[in-house]
Amino acid sequence: MPEIIDLRGDWATPPTPAMRRAMAEAEVGDDNSHEDPTVIRLEELSAERMGKEAALFVPSGTMGNLVSVLALAEYGTEIILGDKSHAYLSEAGGAAVIGGHPFRPVPNDRFGMLDPTSVEEAINPLDIHCARTGLLMLENTHNLCGGTVLTPQQTAELCAVAHRHGIPVHLDGSRIFNAAAALGIPAADLAAHVDTVTFCLSKGLAAPVGSVVCGPADVIERARQKRKLLGGAMRQAGVIAAAGIVALEQMVDRLPEDHANARRLAEGLAEYPAVEIDLETVQTNLVFFDVRPPLTAEGVAARFEEEGIRCSVFGPRRLRFATHYAVSRADVDRVLAVARQIFA
Amino acid sequence: MPEIIDLRGDWATPPTPAMRRAMAEAEVGDDNSHEDPTVIRLEELSAERMGKEAALFVPSGTMGNLVSVLALAEYGTEIILGDKSHAYLSEAGGAAVIGGHPFRPVPNDRFGMLDPTSVEEAINPLDIHCARTGLLMLENTHNLCGGTVLTPQQTAELCAVAHRHGIPVHLDGSRIFNAAAALGIPAADLAAHVDTVTFCLSKGLAAPVGSVVCGPADVIERARQKRKLLGGAMRQAGVIAAAGIVALEQMVDRLPEDHANARRLAEGLAEYPAVEIDLETVQTNLVFFDVRPPLTAEGVAARFEEEGIRCSVFGPRRLRFATHYAVSRADVDRVLAVARQIFA
Amino acid sequence: MPEIIDLRGDWATPPTPAMRRAMAEAEVGDDNSHEDPTVIRLEELSAERMGKEAALFVPSGTMGNLVSVLALAEYGTEIILGDKSHAYLSEAGGAAVIGGHPFRPVPNDRFGMLDPTSVEEAINPLDIHCARTGLLMLENTHNLCGGTVLTPQQTAELCAVAHRHGIPVHLDGSRIFNAAAALGIPAADLAAHVDTVTFCLSKGLAAPVGSVVCGPADVIERARQKRKLLGGAMRQAGVIAAAGIVALEQMVDRLPEDHANARRLAEGLAEYPAVEIDLETVQTNLVFFDVRPPLTAEGVAARFEEEGIRCSVFGPRRLRFATHYAVSRADVDRVLAVARQIFA
Amino acid sequence: MPEIIDLRGDWATPPTPAMRRAMAEAEVGDDNSHEDPTVIRLEELSAERMGKEAALFVPSGTMGNLVSVLALAEYGTEIILGDKSHAYLSEAGGAAVIGGHPFRPVPNDRFGMLDPTSVEEAINPLDIHCARTGLLMLENTHNLCGGTVLTPQQTAELCAVAHRHGIPVHLDGSRIFNAAAALGIPAADLAAHVDTVTFCLSKGLAAPVGSVVCGPADVIERARQKRKLLGGAMRQAGVIAAAGIVALEQMVDRLPEDHANARRLAEGLAEYPAVEIDLETVQTNLVFFDVRPPLTAEGVAARFEEEGIRCSVFGPRRLRFATHYAVSRADVDRVLAVARQIFA
Repeated sequence: MPEIIDLRGDWATPPTPAMRRAMAEAEVGDDNSHEDPTVIRLEELSAERMGKEAALFVPSGTMGNLVSVLALAEYGTEIILGDKSHAYLSEAGGAAVIGGHPFRPVPNDRFGMLDPTSVEEAINPLDIHCARTGLLMLENTHNLCGGTVLTPQQTAELCAVAHRHGIPVHLDGSRIFNAAAALGIPAADLAAHVDTVTFCLSKGLAAPVGSVVCGPADVIERARQKRKLLGGAMRQAGVIAAAGIVALEQMVDRLPEDHANARRLAEGLAEYPAVEIDLETVQTNLVFFDVRPPLTAEGVAARFEEEGIRCSVFGPRRLRFATHYAVSRADVDRVLAVARQIFA
Repeated sequence: MPEIIDLRGDWATPPTPAMRRAMAEAEVGDDNSHEDPTVIRLEELSAERMGKEAALFVPSGTMGNLVSVLALAEYGTEIILGDKSHAYLSEAGGAAVIGGHPFRPVPNDRFGMLDPTSVEEAINPLDIHCARTGLLMLENTHNLCGGTVLTPQQTAELCAVAHRHGIPVHLDGSRIFNAAAALGIPAADLAAHVDTVTFCLSKGLAAPVGSVVCGPADVIERARQKRKLLGGAMRQAGVIAAAGIVALEQMVDRLPEDHANARRLAEGLAEYPAVEIDLETVQTNLVFFDVRPPLTAEGVAARFEEEGIRCSVFGPRRLRFATHYAVSRADVDRVLAVARQIFA
Repeated sequence: MPEIIDLRGDWATPPTPAMRRAMAEAEVGDDNSHEDPTVIRLEELSAERMGKEAALFVPSGTMGNLVSVLALAEYGTEIILGDKSHAYLSEAGGAAVIGGHPFRPVPNDRFGMLDPTSVEEAINPLDIHCARTGLLMLENTHNLCGGTVLTPQQTAELCAVAHRHGIPVHLDGSRIFNAAAALGIPAADLAAHVDTVTFCLSKGLAAPVGSVVCGPADVIERARQKRKLLGGAMRQAGVIAAAGIVALEQMVDRLPEDHANARRLAEGLAEYPAVEIDLETVQTNLVFFDVRPPLTAEGVAARFEEEGIRCSVFGPRRLRFATHYAVSRADVDRVLAVARQIFA
Repeated sequence: MPEIIDLRGDWATPPTPAMRRAMAEAEVGDDNSHEDPTVIRLEELSAERMGKEAALFVPSGTMGNLVSVLALAEYGTEIILGDKSHAYLSEAGGAAVIGGHPFRPVPNDRFGMLDPTSVEEAINPLDIHCARTGLLMLENTHNLCGGTVLTPQQTAELCAVAHRHGIPVHLDGSRIFNAAAALGIPAADLAAHVDTVTFCLSKGLAAPVGSVVCGPADVIERARQKRKLLGGAMRQAGVIAAAGIVALEQMVDRLPEDHANARRLAEGLAEYPAVEIDLETVQTNLVFFDVRPPLTAEGVAARFEEEGIRCSVFGPRRLRFATHYAVSRADVDRVLAVARQIFA
């Protein structure tokens, strides 16, 4: 039985030995009372990395997006977001269910970008027939579009539209460090124009648990209240924040390795006529591809699984591989060897 | 100063003399206690016209749609509806704001129809990442698409998709009698496949106030509770229900007149190169059209207004005329005469 | 079969002939577009009567309270209100269900008054463990406490507590004109210290449908948006507002008659040992009383019903008579004659 | 500077060395996909300890209560709970804010018990004026009443009332192991009659993070969906669940020690006339007491703080000490020595 290579997601990453050590040794306090020194250190470090005033540690990216929405947008206002965005399709509709925010999706283009004119047209007039527009949400990298990257210029352009109408902007930056690595710039450049940003410690950065929301101090203070409301305030959270600090300090600079592995994997898959893959969208650590009939996504995933290789199914014909620190170049080559058996 | 011809909407209809008489003479009781005889008569008559078991009188079409959503769909479930539908764009997002229902818009085609395959693809899998799909909403006639008509076959096809997945269907039939008149069939044929339907007494039927929700007795009972919750339960509502009975008895059969007037108006406008109009979508009493630059919708509306003619603006270049019982064929001719001054 | 005397509630009042005439002749427009001249006149008259800047016509007292809460209190803030108040016990929990407002009841004393110290103690500190306190709700006259009256001084004292903490106050003044009549002062004196007040046209004032919310112009504007959201915006609502104007102009000054009848009825009932009645709380048009075992409220109500007299049951032993314009002094004497048969 | 003795709460407990070891060595997986073996083991162990079918790990007791409410009670139904309960007063109103559940508090007696008759009277009739009653919530031990204990008999009696009306019961058992220790019975006996129970790993059991909800498998499945909705689903949560397993295995049996320390502390404080303390309510690890004027709670807390002893302030005159594993008998004696300086 071969060792398993888990490419289902970058969330499938066990903590590193350094993280385990940090957890075991963390200095802790009650974070519900805002007195856990390790959480405070992680929050300060995070704010600094995002170029924001303050930060808040939360148990998940979903909660990070949710408290940001609740802190930024007045209850019941409409949210403009991409029609393939994670917050629209994959967070159980939380912003609507819990915050009463109607969704107003606009099309994500092939690279996850929103058309600024479409965004502007989706802003509601002041009219009793419409919920006031309360927020614009962006996503970078854009998961469903292939892990694609928005540039600082694109982000600035969309923020300018929103801000001109007095509408705040939240960035779902679950994988913002991947975007920064792809562009070779600091992550803060990608967060410069948005009001708040959430990033995940538990995806490509491999920490076991947690995300961080960064933004202006008053918004983060409101987000802290919302975190309590949702039951997201934890006690000696420093034990997991300690792993988050390791993630930020040790795991960011190695992301290009994952991107190189993803690229190698994508180019290898592109050789097979049975595989349809848009190489232009393979910009970071995600490799989405379609298989042609008579192949099915479920069938192909089962074939890989037999060989100890796990991937995610995203549709009848669509699959995803995600590279991360526990996937080596040799693992990629093993995946490609199995791909040859399946597709050749 | 010419007499004003108000074509902004079919809601701009004063009650008829017969309605005023009926209101003055109505036998009444407390409808909050469900004992107003005139309301009960209207509800029975409405249920019969829609071929449903029971009915509920509500103060507006917006409340009719809202109590139907709250009665049919479990809290927090996702609603599939057209991306140009009234409930999505023009009811202040009530289903999301009040019921916590995430919206999942799918494209309305040019005639207000939804593609059954797109509807089926929008149904969420059972997965913790997704809000369960709780409702499909249709609209007939479809206002923003031009007052266009769904046939019983089209309705049945969409209902079949939803019902196959255990999802109920609500029909926003604010103008369902216009759809029935256009097809020359009973309105009940258009409501046969949906679970609940709302129709308005106060649009083409000219009653001053009110709409009616029709459906199975148990759903209507829940809708009655939701009406109370929203503050829509009224006392001696028979005074307005009386006008609604007149509307149903006297105003339905004359709708083809409005349609003929709308057609005449549309064809007249179509003669001008400055006007862009899709005559295929002028199927009932609404006439949407665009004006070409350098004309603007606001400018054109102002020119009509100077001549005592009112229309509605729906975009930078888009306008709407709505015909109704207070608009005669002579009025249409006066509108066309003014149109000649503006567009020729 | 004797003619029925309906004392179940002051909402059991048919419109007067003057109201019916007014409805039949009302000048109307689309109130959804805020252009119904009769509604506007009613709103202006109402604002003036309450000494407030602006007013909004709504279909019910429940909606009046609900839009006031939604307009005054930030979403999710806590509401302090009496533990026997109508908004807490008898409006389907709307403020909580729809506005997400946790209820924080404090005890109503025997006369419907709240203890200012208890109110102050119920105000939450700024602490993430607590929902911020967002509103104080009062009720005058207080239904469940017997139709009892709060004085301007009492109202001012409670408002002072709230306002000192930056908390707005809404007055459920469904029967505020009864309170004013009992004190012999203008209703505006009772609304002077609160931010918003709702009063009902359809209770003692006998209009068939409707209530009015009065307050500052900006709050009323927000309330108008909330009315739309709830589906409470009606079309040619002038037909019912016309009856409301008659109610305000012709029915206010005659309320002392109802109070005298209630007093006569209460004193008559007090003579029977089988009846327990607190005459001090019979201050307006409501007469609550308990019957002693082996009598039961249901049994007593049934005995009255046999004689064509209707009352409301409020508990296993508790009943209520409400006097109003359709109940004459002779009717009261007939009720007392039947009471003698039951209780003597 | 003396070493600090932190008696503010039993949440002020650093993880034990065994917990730190367990965290460092935990076998983990993605708990969002329900495949973290350590979380699964903790859930199984928890279900067994509570005598329930299934369990769910959550980041906090607040989220445990919230997902239980959302899983058990239909949206917008009323919740009956104690007027001094944690869920009513100290969880930011989450059940109302997020679930739209109106609160219906009934008085907690001095020992945290609810009167079964009061509970039954608070159940709403089926009436459109009332939100249906959807849940009864209990709390054991009862924090604000002094860490007091409900017996299995008392719990059964209250559950019987609720279940007779078809209403489910949730037990906030944040400190249920303290209640069990005080009674010398298994915790499962205290959860036998309720539908769901939440207990905290991070209070007296000293784990750094987390609580567990236990109940029927189908309810826990719904709770799992609600946890995702709130953003409470974590990734490699096994790292913290590992500490929770240690808590359950090693920390439960030592709770009587904390109770003995609390008793010793309470009896020592009771000697001073300046201190008012109800020794009958000191049943577990919490010691609430009042100080008499001119002393104030803030002043007394500051005096203790100067000596390195921390307590919690619960009102102008009310304070709380909580004993836990990091507080030794010698610590208690030091607290009493300082108390002598302050109170003698």
